[in-house]
Amino acid sequence: MKHKEARSKRGILEATIEMLAVNSYSSLTIEAVASQAGVGKSTIYRWWNNKARLVLDAFLMTAESGFEFDGNRPVQDNFRQQLEALARILNSPIGKSTLTIVTENDEIAEDFYNLFLITKRNTAKQALQAAIDKGEVKPAVNLDVALDLLYGPIYFQILIYKKIPDEDYINDLLIHVMNGIAAAAN
Amino acid sequence: MKHKEARSKRGILEATIEMLAVNSYSSLTIEAVASQAGVGKSTIYRWWNNKARLVLDAFLMTAESGFEFDGNRPVQDNFRQQLEALARILNSPIGKSTLTIVTENDEIAEDFYNLFLITKRNTAKQALQAAIDKGEVKPAVNLDVALDLLYGPIYFQILIYKKIPDEDYINDLLIHVMNGIAAAAN
Repeated sequence: MKHKEARSKRGILEATIEMLAVNSYSSLTIEAVASQAGVGKSTIYRWWNNKARLVLDAFLMTAESGFEFDGNRPVQDNFRQQLEALARILNSPIGKSTLTIVTENDEIAEDFYNLFLITKRNTAKQALQAAIDKGEVKPAVNLDVALDLLYGPIYFQILIYKKIPDEDYINDLLIHVMNGIAAAAN
Repeated sequence: MKHKEARSKRGILEATIEMLAVNSYSSLTIEAVASQAGVGKSTIYRWWNNKARLVLDAFLMTAESGFEFDGNRPVQDNFRQQLEALARILNSPIGKSTLTIVTENDEIAEDFYNLFLITKRNTAKQALQAAIDKGEVKPAVNLDVALDLLYGPIYFQILIYKKIPDEDYINDLLIHVMNGIAAAAN
């Protein structure tokens, strides 16, 4: 991708995020995004077929950072940062819009699954395996179940209870999960 | 409620469940339910304002049983039965239709929350407290977080991963959670 094209794409995604901070997803229009980004509508339609796909891409751009694991820190600290970043992004206007589209639109749900969930899950799984290799976590742990214990309650609280997990909630969640999966202290 | 009226209501709810086993929610009509139940459409509209409310009530009738706690059994066995019942009902045609409506319709989501989730949550919380009182579970456990650890992954798997947790998954889930919250063996 040429530099100029990348810059233009990024500008459109940033304009989408800015528009969603003041407009609901349903009232968002491609015209308004184009005007905010200083491009023509046709430029947007060249890259995105519809509004839903544009919003998902803006979400993915936002979620690019904040989910790195630092192998030098205890796994619990890494997961705390991950869960706080996840709660924050899912609670932002772009995150809320994305969850709405994901529950309504099967095609977007599939993209969200492949481009966000699976990617992040694989990284988290490697980090958990590294923690097992370092003796921080019990080797008998079922990686998928352990990750569902960390992430499941966050999505559950947001999607079903419509509540955003706060620092205290995330702290208690981590303590309870780590009590179950941490290797016994020597 | 008079006996005859209760019988008629029950018949309509059962007809709704039967119809959803062979039709999608979107293709379900009040006419078809009325015909299946052998009543007039006006009888259905006397008790339910719309299709969504009818389906939610059919779900609540289905969920009336299968979620009892037996104070004489270990808390882990009780939760295993609960989680299996939950996965089974959410995976049934009436359960899937209900989750679809809940994600689309805020009013139904509120009723689902108040009439299903909160009711079951309170019962589960009492059972967990009883397990603490009996010395099965650590007193320091955060009841809400512990219950989210059990139920969150089930909803997460179904809503986000579109997978139904099987017996092995539920077994591993219980082991990991109980490892974290069970009182230390004497």
